[in-house]
Amino acid sequence: MIKKEAQNFEIDNLDIDILKQLMVDGTKPYSEIAKDLIVSGGTIHVRMKKMQEMGIIEGTHLVIHPQKVGYDICAFLGIFLEKGIQYKDAVAQLSKIKEVVELHYTTGTYSMFAKIICRDTNHLRHVLNEEIQAVEGIQRTETLISLEESIKRQIELS
Amino acid sequence: MIKKEAQNFEIDNLDIDILKQLMVDGTKPYSEIAKDLIVSGGTIHVRMKKMQEMGIIEGTHLVIHPQKVGYDICAFLGIFLEKGIQYKDAVAQLSKIKEVVELHYTTGTYSMFAKIICRDTNHLRHVLNEEIQAVEGIQRTETLISLEESIKRQIELS
Amino acid sequence: MIKKEAQNFEIDNLDIDILKQLMVDGTKPYSEIAKDLIVSGGTIHVRMKKMQEMGIIEGTHLVIHPQKVGYDICAFLGIFLEKGIQYKDAVAQLSKIKEVVELHYTTGTYSMFAKIICRDTNHLRHVLNEEIQAVEGIQRTETLISLEESIKRQIELS
Amino acid sequence: MIKKEAQNFEIDNLDIDILKQLMVDGTKPYSEIAKDLIVSGGTIHVRMKKMQEMGIIEGTHLVIHPQKVGYDICAFLGIFLEKGIQYKDAVAQLSKIKEVVELHYTTGTYSMFAKIICRDTNHLRHVLNEEIQAVEGIQRTETLISLEESIKRQIELS
Amino acid sequence: MIKKEAQNFEIDNLDIDILKQLMVDGTKPYSEIAKDLIVSGGTIHVRMKKMQEMGIIEGTHLVIHPQKVGYDICAFLGIFLEKGIQYKDAVAQLSKIKEVVELHYTTGTYSMFAKIICRDTNHLRHVLNEEIQAVEGIQRTETLISLEESIKRQIELS
Amino acid sequence: MIKKEAQNFEIDNLDIDILKQLMVDGTKPYSEIAKDLIVSGGTIHVRMKKMQEMGIIEGTHLVIHPQKVGYDICAFLGIFLEKGIQYKDAVAQLSKIKEVVELHYTTGTYSMFAKIICRDTNHLRHVLNEEIQAVEGIQRTETLISLEESIKRQIELS
Amino acid sequence: MIKKEAQNFEIDNLDIDILKQLMVDGTKPYSEIAKDLIVSGGTIHVRMKKMQEMGIIEGTHLVIHPQKVGYDICAFLGIFLEKGIQYKDAVAQLSKIKEVVELHYTTGTYSMFAKIICRDTNHLRHVLNEEIQAVEGIQRTETLISLEESIKRQIELS
Amino acid sequence: MIKKEAQNFEIDNLDIDILKQLMVDGTKPYSEIAKDLIVSGGTIHVRMKKMQEMGIIEGTHLVIHPQKVGYDICAFLGIFLEKGIQYKDAVAQLSKIKEVVELHYTTGTYSMFAKIICRDTNHLRHVLNEEIQAVEGIQRTETLISLEESIKRQIELS
Repeated sequence: MIKKEAQNFEIDNLDIDILKQLMVDGTKPYSEIAKDLIVSGGTIHVRMKKMQEMGIIEGTHLVIHPQKVGYDICAFLGIFLEKGIQYKDAVAQLSKIKEVVELHYTTGTYSMFAKIICRDTNHLRHVLNEEIQAVEGIQRTETLISLEESIKRQIELS
Repeated sequence: MIKKEAQNFEIDNLDIDILKQLMVDGTKPYSEIAKDLIVSGGTIHVRMKKMQEMGIIEGTHLVIHPQKVGYDICAFLGIFLEKGIQYKDAVAQLSKIKEVVELHYTTGTYSMFAKIICRDTNHLRHVLNEEIQAVEGIQRTETLISLEESIKRQIELS
Repeated sequence: MIKKEAQNFEIDNLDIDILKQLMVDGTKPYSEIAKDLIVSGGTIHVRMKKMQEMGIIEGTHLVIHPQKVGYDICAFLGIFLEKGIQYKDAVAQLSKIKEVVELHYTTGTYSMFAKIICRDTNHLRHVLNEEIQAVEGIQRTETLISLEESIKRQIELS
Repeated sequence: MIKKEAQNFEIDNLDIDILKQLMVDGTKPYSEIAKDLIVSGGTIHVRMKKMQEMGIIEGTHLVIHPQKVGYDICAFLGIFLEKGIQYKDAVAQLSKIKEVVELHYTTGTYSMFAKIICRDTNHLRHVLNEEIQAVEGIQRTETLISLEESIKRQIELS
Repeated sequence: MIKKEAQNFEIDNLDIDILKQLMVDGTKPYSEIAKDLIVSGGTIHVRMKKMQEMGIIEGTHLVIHPQKVGYDICAFLGIFLEKGIQYKDAVAQLSKIKEVVELHYTTGTYSMFAKIICRDTNHLRHVLNEEIQAVEGIQRTETLISLEESIKRQIELS
Repeated sequence: MIKKEAQNFEIDNLDIDILKQLMVDGTKPYSEIAKDLIVSGGTIHVRMKKMQEMGIIEGTHLVIHPQKVGYDICAFLGIFLEKGIQYKDAVAQLSKIKEVVELHYTTGTYSMFAKIICRDTNHLRHVLNEEIQAVEGIQRTETLISLEESIKRQIELS
Repeated sequence: MIKKEAQNFEIDNLDIDILKQLMVDGTKPYSEIAKDLIVSGGTIHVRMKKMQEMGIIEGTHLVIHPQKVGYDICAFLGIFLEKGIQYKDAVAQLSKIKEVVELHYTTGTYSMFAKIICRDTNHLRHVLNEEIQAVEGIQRTETLISLEESIKRQIELS
Repeated sequence: MIKKEAQNFEIDNLDIDILKQLMVDGTKPYSEIAKDLIVSGGTIHVRMKKMQEMGIIEGTHLVIHPQKVGYDICAFLGIFLEKGIQYKDAVAQLSKIKEVVELHYTTGTYSMFAKIICRDTNHLRHVLNEEIQAVEGIQRTETLISLEESIKRQIELS
């Protein structure tokens, strides 16, 4: 049977409007959101609880500017594995390296694609040379260094 | 004169400890943080205000899972400009395309490197073909599609 | 509103079973299919009509072996456009070149990706050099020649 | 002796005309074709039988639109083998993966070049990661995703 | 009509045997060849005349060792054209540069592929920079320098 | 001591003039050359003997047109070795494959670069797949197929 | 604690002025420098001693023109390691090859990047083939040959 | 006439021995060198003067450690020109950018290859984006950042 199940995202325009407010300011009190959207505060709680249970909401995080606390280097790494099948093991090992802040399994030239944040070029050399290259299954990496992050934002819901 | 000015990040271990708590849960009340760190609530306020003024704190955001609200495709774009000097104009134009959630000026093969979030392959084709390719100065793009985001986190302060 | 509409492919297991039989032998009489699937011949007609109207069925074609009628060369072409935005015009021009039997708008290194069938290397040179390179907007092409087609089949429905 | 044998394709213009009609509509009755070409129906039968025996005709197939039955992703794979000599074994293993609908031994950068059809990006990740990467001898793959198939047809005989 | 004409290379084993002797030593007298092959000298003349008329024989050339007369550098050039359609003009211009001893229209990454012979690296720089780069339509070149020619021979007939 | 020895190519303008005549027509009698250059026939013999002993002259060869005797495919192969140090062994093995008519040790992307001549694409597949890929130490190859040889000549002495 | 220590380069404008004079002419007597800068000769000695102890000054070297003493070839080598972790061992082995005059651990495509100086192409082939390729851990190299060094200078202090 | 002139480097073992001492320490007094080599001081003067006139000696320079005076970034740039023939103009413009400390005209992928020294990534971005990309004729650049300079020395004479 190939009849495709409707992916029943049970969220409506009100849910979206709540998310949009909190994506801008995650500390905004539910009471203010309720007032803005002309619903009761309880409605906001119910909706947020539902969206948390659905896994739509990953959390509320203070976001810092890495450069301002001494992390000057943001780099992207194209990773070539010796064998594509080593992907799962490599993920497990890379997740132990705290400088790796994003990791993707990608189509295209690379097996995996990572984003790393380091203090300076010495730190970057250490992470590349001692930690990432030591991961079993990684054959080699190609590094792109970000000289400027011109845009950084979440997707705008509509 | 080449004497390098000390970049005097006026933050200490207490500041770091506050940031670490809020990077995990941006909604944690200052009073609880104060209790955990055995300082007064006023101290937390003072420290946070200072770090906001220093630009260390970019904001507190609700972070959502794009796939769960119907944004299935996460792609990375290597962008080649006709002339590197068109960088600033291209940034201005790309910032109007809301699907572009990250944009970097990078070393390596590409002039720029972007991250985009789309609903599906039709949406991706539209964004690539109608919007990004229409940006003046962009010669061509190379697309990597993320088939799985295995790691996603902020840098862990220490 | 981001509630995703169920893509209501109104086809069921019987539809699939009919397609599977005709994908193997497109000349099989409906009466035989009906007998195999223990339904009436009229049911087969109704189902086929529905699937034709839905665009699921593209047609029934005699498939020939190109090499056996003198078309020795099967090649894949990665096409680089001067500007990605010229895509639509390039498609229109390429569709007039009958040796181009497949054309895709692709992610990755190339703007477009084509499959072409030629009689011999002289014919291939003519098509590449006189016809495809003459298409406005095409900057250059990279050619992969198929030395052997080891697998060729339709997707197996399930 | 290097005198080259004439490849005696014993087909003439009538054969070609028959093929051309059936390549457009594989269900057209021989009687109608005979009437169009002003020959007897028996002649059509004789010619078709000859061309089937010569291997010119691969079959008559109902062709479906994969997207319309839930197969959204069409991708091309450049495959690098650890050693070129593993080609035959790799073909045998790849032919067991039903999502691989075309496979070529190619000149150029890649050892092999495949076309695969998947339901969605999750399915693609599974096929790439669990099935294709598990094939012995495959070192790595490069994936191009088709965002639009603009041309799809058989070679036009002349 | 696609019946393929037999390419009637009217050459037989005797022709091949004659060619094989002269490909090794182009100055061998016909009388000696005749004696070796147990035919009359006249037969050799007749066969050679026929093969010259058929264009099989390009000539008899003294072949020299370029390094031994001061031509130290043998390089291969991958040539990218601005537009593939400029191929014919580029050939005409390149044929005026005597250091270009071979030129091919190729599939793969490059538009054209050339072999050049130069005295030294100064000469190579001059040829690349002043002559080849000045050819209208050539966008850029990639150079491979041969550090050793390990095999150099004609195809062995059989 | 770094005083560089003069490479004393003991050839003069007369030698060059003799070579130039024979490079055009390797069967031209010495008597005619002598007449053209207004020297004695004996002088030609002496000079030729000297140049043969110096290794300047590699031989006189009948040059044939490969396509005219059934060798339709001329291809260039970039060869990647598993380890660069396997070069000598690979040369020894490749020299046993008679379709390899040129082999170079090159700078640039490839370890080695070869030219091969084959009858047709079937023959090419066999040579690549069964013979060249079987050579120990060869990891993979990239193939460029020549669709047209536009220039083919020896370096013009001056 | 992430308060960054001021890198207290204890050098001032006078130090810079001294360096600038000696970077142009390393044999200039301290007495002349003192006169130019209107300080005592002792001051120059004190400052130079301090900068030597700080590791700012690497030495004073006679710089020669390699081509003028018979070293004609300057080449850059992109080096791919089998495993990135072999970097330290490879450095140790490469430092024994005296033709390697610069070696960098780099971001981008290559693991390491070297500059080598050789007498001629024979010497280069020997160094690449016998020495560098023999280093354990080096998988392959890509060579760029410098045909002309157009700029060569130290950074200008300011 | 192709008889190659002996490149008569009029330098002998004594010259070499003098160079070797000064390449290690450019401030060593001639009297000490004379004593070591058991010749008169006048001989050293005569030899040095000769080698300066021959252009063998480029100068004596104090060599500094760029990182120690605040120049943290050493990068290599592969430069692609729009047209190879713009090389000379590009050299003239690049020589005005003081961060460019080396520039080569190279074989291989790039038109030119440069080494640049910058203070930090901000400085690098400025130099790449505002200065180098503004040079007429430069189409794009690829940047390799040196994370560690493991070897740095002159060629050792022998």
